[in-house]
Amino acid sequence: MKIARIVGSTISTIKDPKVATTKILICQETDPTGKVFGKPYTAIDLVDAGTDDLVLTCHGSAARQTTLTKDTPVDAVIMAVIDHLELDKQVVFRK
Amino acid sequence: MKIARIVGSTISTIKDPKVATTKILICQETDPTGKVFGKPYTAIDLVDAGTDDLVLTCHGSAARQTTLTKDTPVDAVIMAVIDHLELDKQVVFRK
Amino acid sequence: MKIARIVGSTISTIKDPKVATTKILICQETDPTGKVFGKPYTAIDLVDAGTDDLVLTCHGSAARQTTLTKDTPVDAVIMAVIDHLELDKQVVFRK
Amino acid sequence: MKIARIVGSTISTIKDPKVATTKILICQETDPTGKVFGKPYTAIDLVDAGTDDLVLTCHGSAARQTTLTKDTPVDAVIMAVIDHLELDKQVVFRK
Amino acid sequence: MKIARIVGSTISTIKDPKVATTKILICQETDPTGKVFGKPYTAIDLVDAGTDDLVLTCHGSAARQTTLTKDTPVDAVIMAVIDHLELDKQVVFRK
Repeated sequence: MKIARIVGSTISTIKDPKVATTKILICQETDPTGKVFGKPYTAIDLVDAGTDDLVLTCHGSAARQTTLTKDTPVDAVIMAVIDHLELDKQVVFRK
Repeated sequence: MKIARIVGSTISTIKDPKVATTKILICQETDPTGKVFGKPYTAIDLVDAGTDDLVLTCHGSAARQTTLTKDTPVDAVIMAVIDHLELDKQVVFRK
Repeated sequence: MKIARIVGSTISTIKDPKVATTKILICQETDPTGKVFGKPYTAIDLVDAGTDDLVLTCHGSAARQTTLTKDTPVDAVIMAVIDHLELDKQVVFRK
Repeated sequence: MKIARIVGSTISTIKDPKVATTKILICQETDPTGKVFGKPYTAIDLVDAGTDDLVLTCHGSAARQTTLTKDTPVDAVIMAVIDHLELDKQVVFRK
Repeated sequence: MKIARIVGSTISTIKDPKVATTKILICQETDPTGKVFGKPYTAIDLVDAGTDDLVLTCHGSAARQTTLTKDTPVDAVIMAVIDHLELDKQVVFRK
């Protein structure tokens, strides 16, 4: 799973009917201290995350192992909000 | 899912029979403001997208979770046309 | 799907029995004008492609959605020969 | 599978119920001598690994081929602790 | 599939029980002339490959389409030993 920060959201009226009611957020990967890097991507929100939250996103067929996303054309979901990150036995992030 | 812009199209007469009737478009990833970057790729169009549209594409087995693409050798589909992108609570793209 | 050019071929006498009779070609990604870039990879040929052809390859579990490759240890197939590529409404490649 | 070092851990109270009881560690890829490189990622721990252990992680649907992770939104697991690495017939790492 | 060279091996006593008896080798991608590049990764050996052999590795769910790896937490296998590589109609590698 990737460590990512929620940086935005997206709205689409024309979309595959199977994902008509899902909330799609824009995420950007971060290092374990929460600093963003790399390119943004979008993921379906499963945990009611908000802008600036640090989250875990899972990708590929893993993204369809939930009631909301089963059998839908979805390849990324937000599956946890991070409270606490520890690196080399030191706390580097606390929500 | 990736945020991408439709930049072109492709025609093939010799192709796997399962994808004989599908429309294959050329996409290129963009940042959330719509600026393209990276290498182009192709995806099956599910939402009747046109050149220059900003879209969401999903990849891998996710691409076969639709009636049109079920059990076909397809690894990317265009599953939404983007109307509106919001970044850090500011609208950065409106169709 | 990736846009790629056929650049070579490979022969293996010791291989998994399930792929004993398949033809494995070496591909290299191209931009939409047909210029190669990036590293080469191999794919099972489904459409009788030849050296220098511009093709579409699909990857991952998509590669096993055909009669020839079903249930085999294969992660890439050539599923179309490209006749025609259009970019920004201009024809950039014609076979 | 990737060769990785355990560099930290993460705690989330809000997460998908299917992964409520799993231990999620932060990993970073290493070369075969154990030197870390690249960006960190998270994986479910199957083998009771500890900080600084050198491990193997597997990715994608492979990560759900275990009793603990079956049908869960998980795309990476730690599936082995490495005791011994040999490169060009020389031992380059011993636990 | 990737063209790779076998560069080493790994031993783990603590590993997921499903992969307890498999042989895990360290591979590194090569260009079609056999020159290694990029980062090393590990794969389950299906074809009794040895150090320095040039092989094909397949990735993702493809890696579980064999009797040895079915339903196991494995995302890469060595599925062929390469005898012969031809590039632009010239033989560039012969075992």
